[in-house]
Amino acid sequence: MPARRDPAHRTLPRPAGPRILLINPNITQAITDRLHEAALAVAGPGTTITALTARRGVPYIASRAEAAIGGVVALEMLAEHGHDADAAIIAAFGDPGLGAARELFAFPVIGMAEAAMLTACMLGRRFSIVSFSTTLGAWYRECVEQHGLSERLAGLRLLDGPFAHITTVGEEKATALVELAHRSVEEDGADVIVLAGAPLAGLAAIVRDRVPVPVVDGVQAALKQAEALAALRPRKAIAGSFRRPAAKQTKGLTAALAATIEHGE
Amino acid sequence: MPARRDPAHRTLPRPAGPRILLINPNITQAITDRLHEAALAVAGPGTTITALTARRGVPYIASRAEAAIGGVVALEMLAEHGHDADAAIIAAFGDPGLGAARELFAFPVIGMAEAAMLTACMLGRRFSIVSFSTTLGAWYRECVEQHGLSERLAGLRLLDGPFAHITTVGEEKATALVELAHRSVEEDGADVIVLAGAPLAGLAAIVRDRVPVPVVDGVQAALKQAEALAALRPRKAIAGSFRRPAAKQTKGLTAALAATIEHGE
Amino acid sequence: MPARRDPAHRTLPRPAGPRILLINPNITQAITDRLHEAALAVAGPGTTITALTARRGVPYIASRAEAAIGGVVALEMLAEHGHDADAAIIAAFGDPGLGAARELFAFPVIGMAEAAMLTACMLGRRFSIVSFSTTLGAWYRECVEQHGLSERLAGLRLLDGPFAHITTVGEEKATALVELAHRSVEEDGADVIVLAGAPLAGLAAIVRDRVPVPVVDGVQAALKQAEALAALRPRKAIAGSFRRPAAKQTKGLTAALAATIEHGE
Amino acid sequence: MPARRDPAHRTLPRPAGPRILLINPNITQAITDRLHEAALAVAGPGTTITALTARRGVPYIASRAEAAIGGVVALEMLAEHGHDADAAIIAAFGDPGLGAARELFAFPVIGMAEAAMLTACMLGRRFSIVSFSTTLGAWYRECVEQHGLSERLAGLRLLDGPFAHITTVGEEKATALVELAHRSVEEDGADVIVLAGAPLAGLAAIVRDRVPVPVVDGVQAALKQAEALAALRPRKAIAGSFRRPAAKQTKGLTAALAATIEHGE
Amino acid sequence: MPARRDPAHRTLPRPAGPRILLINPNITQAITDRLHEAALAVAGPGTTITALTARRGVPYIASRAEAAIGGVVALEMLAEHGHDADAAIIAAFGDPGLGAARELFAFPVIGMAEAAMLTACMLGRRFSIVSFSTTLGAWYRECVEQHGLSERLAGLRLLDGPFAHITTVGEEKATALVELAHRSVEEDGADVIVLAGAPLAGLAAIVRDRVPVPVVDGVQAALKQAEALAALRPRKAIAGSFRRPAAKQTKGLTAALAATIEHGE
Amino acid sequence: MPARRDPAHRTLPRPAGPRILLINPNITQAITDRLHEAALAVAGPGTTITALTARRGVPYIASRAEAAIGGVVALEMLAEHGHDADAAIIAAFGDPGLGAARELFAFPVIGMAEAAMLTACMLGRRFSIVSFSTTLGAWYRECVEQHGLSERLAGLRLLDGPFAHITTVGEEKATALVELAHRSVEEDGADVIVLAGAPLAGLAAIVRDRVPVPVVDGVQAALKQAEALAALRPRKAIAGSFRRPAAKQTKGLTAALAATIEHGE
Repeated sequence: MPARRDPAHRTLPRPAGPRILLINPNITQAITDRLHEAALAVAGPGTTITALTARRGVPYIASRAEAAIGGVVALEMLAEHGHDADAAIIAAFGDPGLGAARELFAFPVIGMAEAAMLTACMLGRRFSIVSFSTTLGAWYRECVEQHGLSERLAGLRLLDGPFAHITTVGEEKATALVELAHRSVEEDGADVIVLAGAPLAGLAAIVRDRVPVPVVDGVQAALKQAEALAALRPRKAIAGSFRRPAAKQTKGLTAALAATIEHGE
Repeated sequence: MPARRDPAHRTLPRPAGPRILLINPNITQAITDRLHEAALAVAGPGTTITALTARRGVPYIASRAEAAIGGVVALEMLAEHGHDADAAIIAAFGDPGLGAARELFAFPVIGMAEAAMLTACMLGRRFSIVSFSTTLGAWYRECVEQHGLSERLAGLRLLDGPFAHITTVGEEKATALVELAHRSVEEDGADVIVLAGAPLAGLAAIVRDRVPVPVVDGVQAALKQAEALAALRPRKAIAGSFRRPAAKQTKGLTAALAATIEHGE
Repeated sequence: MPARRDPAHRTLPRPAGPRILLINPNITQAITDRLHEAALAVAGPGTTITALTARRGVPYIASRAEAAIGGVVALEMLAEHGHDADAAIIAAFGDPGLGAARELFAFPVIGMAEAAMLTACMLGRRFSIVSFSTTLGAWYRECVEQHGLSERLAGLRLLDGPFAHITTVGEEKATALVELAHRSVEEDGADVIVLAGAPLAGLAAIVRDRVPVPVVDGVQAALKQAEALAALRPRKAIAGSFRRPAAKQTKGLTAALAATIEHGE
Repeated sequence: MPARRDPAHRTLPRPAGPRILLINPNITQAITDRLHEAALAVAGPGTTITALTARRGVPYIASRAEAAIGGVVALEMLAEHGHDADAAIIAAFGDPGLGAARELFAFPVIGMAEAAMLTACMLGRRFSIVSFSTTLGAWYRECVEQHGLSERLAGLRLLDGPFAHITTVGEEKATALVELAHRSVEEDGADVIVLAGAPLAGLAAIVRDRVPVPVVDGVQAALKQAEALAALRPRKAIAGSFRRPAAKQTKGLTAALAATIEHGE
Repeated sequence: MPARRDPAHRTLPRPAGPRILLINPNITQAITDRLHEAALAVAGPGTTITALTARRGVPYIASRAEAAIGGVVALEMLAEHGHDADAAIIAAFGDPGLGAARELFAFPVIGMAEAAMLTACMLGRRFSIVSFSTTLGAWYRECVEQHGLSERLAGLRLLDGPFAHITTVGEEKATALVELAHRSVEEDGADVIVLAGAPLAGLAAIVRDRVPVPVVDGVQAALKQAEALAALRPRKAIAGSFRRPAAKQTKGLTAALAATIEHGE
Repeated sequence: MPARRDPAHRTLPRPAGPRILLINPNITQAITDRLHEAALAVAGPGTTITALTARRGVPYIASRAEAAIGGVVALEMLAEHGHDADAAIIAAFGDPGLGAARELFAFPVIGMAEAAMLTACMLGRRFSIVSFSTTLGAWYRECVEQHGLSERLAGLRLLDGPFAHITTVGEEKATALVELAHRSVEEDGADVIVLAGAPLAGLAAIVRDRVPVPVVDGVQAALKQAEALAALRPRKAIAGSFRRPAAKQTKGLTAALAATIEHGE
């Protein structure tokens, strides 16, 4: 059953800070660990973070097809584990399943790319997205377009060529990524750099002083936005396009996701 | 294994017309039947249409969450049944899984919404989308935006209120839909009407003379576009964002989809 | 008198495939021959193609002024020869006279540029236009804008420098055009290449295997779209901005065009 | 031969103010007279205006097809009469042939719609176009889009229904047009009203006090812009997309237009 | 001198939460009090808020001219009081002076409108802005455009007619504003409502249960974003368009603002 | 008190040409002199130009913060000196205070950047802005966006590196600016060059023959537009977003600006 809290309880003082569910929709635990660690580094005093790795899917998401699969996997994970979350983060840069999750669940759902970009918007007029593989380009670009933020994008710069291991690509490529950031500032007019991709979680703090403009770390931005939304306690829409879809029969879905959809609004 | 034909064979004369795979990503066979029948009505002499209904999912798709699920189901179906297709149609109006399918498979994949809108573009400057339920609005609007066609959209008009049965909603609501089409022309400046939604397959021919501008039937437009692309025989991209993603390990996917992704480019 | 078929006849089975009128709005017969040959190579079994060369105008169209003249010439040709066409193609890449023709005539009119671009849209997210002369640039770019497709354009790449003869420029420049296509993919992010310009008709098939993404041939795309629209038999608008303009007096026009305009809706 | 003045002469003091050629691309002399009179009312002390009526075409332009014809007629007129003009105005609201004329001729060419809209931009953030017939809507809207000014358009409001005579429609419909202007301000947020269409020339001065925001008269704005450009004496481009097209053979054009095109750059 | 903290200190644990400077650029203390109170209601445990009222300007800002003045006043206030701020909020809905402040000062500066809109983006696809006076319309609309967020705007709905007092207009008009919110959801497709305007601070919490979608309170969103940015500690740009302008002579400015500009980067 | 002429007087013949107020919102008299001289070179026979230098502010404006200050200074100057102006020019390229001035004053107010860009629009499809310092880039780009003219912008090219003196930077850098203009034409597709920045006033005439497309001088375009608007005598809006704001109390403003705001509509 999807997460729902009795509204009556919402007015009571909460004993502690927000409970944030951090969903990694790929199957690599080491990436989840990086994400978790980077998020903890900026978390508020009372915040609790539960980080989960997908049980099915691919080791990392780098194409439209993998993102489509990751999106449904994210829904499955949120349906199963969202019970008492105050907010959740889908921690893949292209925000797979984000709009769908916002329909289905009562708690705020944060997309790592969206949170990073919106945070970047408050630090300058135009941001550039910098990441470690050209294969990510089309997916990321479509993500920017789908969020309606193309006007704020100065550019998208991606490293070409192979890397040793997906979980340590940030450290391996740090210098090359810093170089891309410099070119984004000088040639593309970027006011802010977004270091994109779950495997780069935590890298921003390391390279911060080597980049001449603010650098946004995706999962850290997402964590702060999750805390912000948890504190603002927005109501779940009961009208408009993000109200819960009407209850509907399902076939062949995971138990928790089926229950969420069959229960309906 | 995904559909691949030996390039050497492509230059030989084909014994017959194109084989089109018509994928209905919802689980309602009666909607598949409607789609199939409407497509057959405009098919070329040698065209073969294979129509398939999803084995898992929901009875019809009307929200972002259902579309996310339907998109993966479409990939599963294409992976399992696309072997000898010359082109395939994803026959749900919001085109779930379309970009992902174009990455994974060597044959052209047509989205019903995209085909309908592009066909409408050749019949006027601005088209309106008319359909039977306000719940479809956000999904359809985002579909138009994601195809970069908002500039061509005159408007989106949807019926409000319940309907008796999803498989016959077109006949039930024909008069009301014609009325919406008239208002789209008069108030929104539509030059063309797109009747949207798989359950309305075949309705355009019935109401054609009661609407003062051309009416596009989604699956019929898709079928003709599938035939067109099959005849043009575009090569599968081996560069750019629609080349096949590199082979990648998977976990927990259907056998055919796993094989497609694990095989890679 | 403009082409009009008795609606009663439309419901009878047609004895053969569609009759497509292929209008070349420049005065060079050799270009018409290239267009005709390329179209025939992809035509369906029953399709009849009538190809016509303009009797007045310029040898090829490469500027706004020449396109303005070519647009009226296209209207004159359609008025004179469109009687029993099921669809017509204006076979110049900038689509001169396209909107005007869609107002005046009852049969579908296909623009070569529009058909190529819409076909390209179904083969990828962003296409690039590649052609043989920088003088074409502004006209082509404005054509893309006027069709509302700028969001889908990855880039426009044109050869610089002279060529030996307009009717064989494709063969002469094939290698250089392939090189431009490669740069469009690598530097501009093109998923599809549109080879633009009537003189390049037929070139796509020749260079197909040397370009790593799908290549669209303008007149072949136009022919398939003409067949598709002929099969869908859209009604002529009697409302909206593509209904026939009201009958109006004329002075100094060709007999057939005058008759078309004076007849009116 | 197209208008060219010896550059050496340009540095000499001019004996009088600018010579403005006012081209009416329709065949109705009474509309030319209205345009001429309205232009004279705001002309500078030394300005000379030569007003010409088309010898071929239609009584007034109200559709894409009529505009296509009017565009070529405008080129013919400019080629024949532009010899010693310091600037020319194409006095039809949709600016038929404007871009083409700017390529072919050395003197500045002003479009009535463009001049009106740009003038309106200096009087507020968003303007509305108000005119006397719904049939003008699509042509006008496409004109705004082609000038890249859609972001500045608050709305387009057009009278529905017949009128007695095209040359006096302004006086006949003055009250209804004022009413549309009021609705444009109140409902669409217009800061400025553009009274569009050659037959409305001179009306703005009459209704000025009955509209609560500035009202722009198309031909008056065009005349002032023509004077402005004549005074600034911009050089004719010899590079970029508005340099004269290379000399090219022609067939079947009017003598003056043929000479212009055959002469080339 | 503008606020600058010794970088060496940044790595030390902070004794308490962030110090947020809340700038009201109008001269009405009662509005500052409302803003302060609403911000406190959602502030984190350690956050310190210093709220300041402008010493010069107008009682409330409702036009471009008043916003221009308010923008400079905001710069003056930030220059004088920003010394030890961790982040600052310019608490007028149109964000007067925001870009300028981000250039001049080393601490993050939050605009109330921008923060509200970006927060709304995470709660739905399209937001509507609802406020209490039509005179605010143009200023707010231009603010949305300047932030590049027009694509996310469902609409702007404003009350017409007078109000009793600017500091209590929210309570006075609560029912009418809720009604506008309902119409925004039903007619404009808003997924989220932004209650705009400093005088409405705190109203969202009161009407929350009467609006069927999430309601964003501007100053509360701004406070949470200020806390988020303070926690992320972005570096001050030393390149790009938000580095500090070079030192420059000034004349006639307030002492603190003059010192800020004369000091330079 | 703001400039207001008795409407009754407007119908009387004016004894002479228009009185144009030329406002330089920076404190450098030598720049005012350049602007004045360049404007005089194209002024009509009866035009009177009064050129004023700001009494407070900075020596030249090159950042958002300086523009914000310059905008208010411009309002102060217009309030003090606009009494009998027929039109006024804010002669800084980014148009500081332009929208605000149009609200407050009854005479037309011209922005130098807007006038230059709109004039350029009549000379080609796309213009490029060329200026002498990269620090101007963000301010100019935002100015283009705020005028809704991004679609017409081919590019923005700025010199890098120091210059000897702001008042003679044009002569010093003439060759380098011409080189940038050439690159704008060749690489960016510019049809027109706008030489931007008050310190470059008068340079266009000097480099005119060395640039292969028309070159627009900002203050000269502004002067001709001011004359044009003065001749058209648009009424002051009494509705819409440019009507004068309602009278409002002020505190701490200059006497003339306070009187203007306190007087109100």
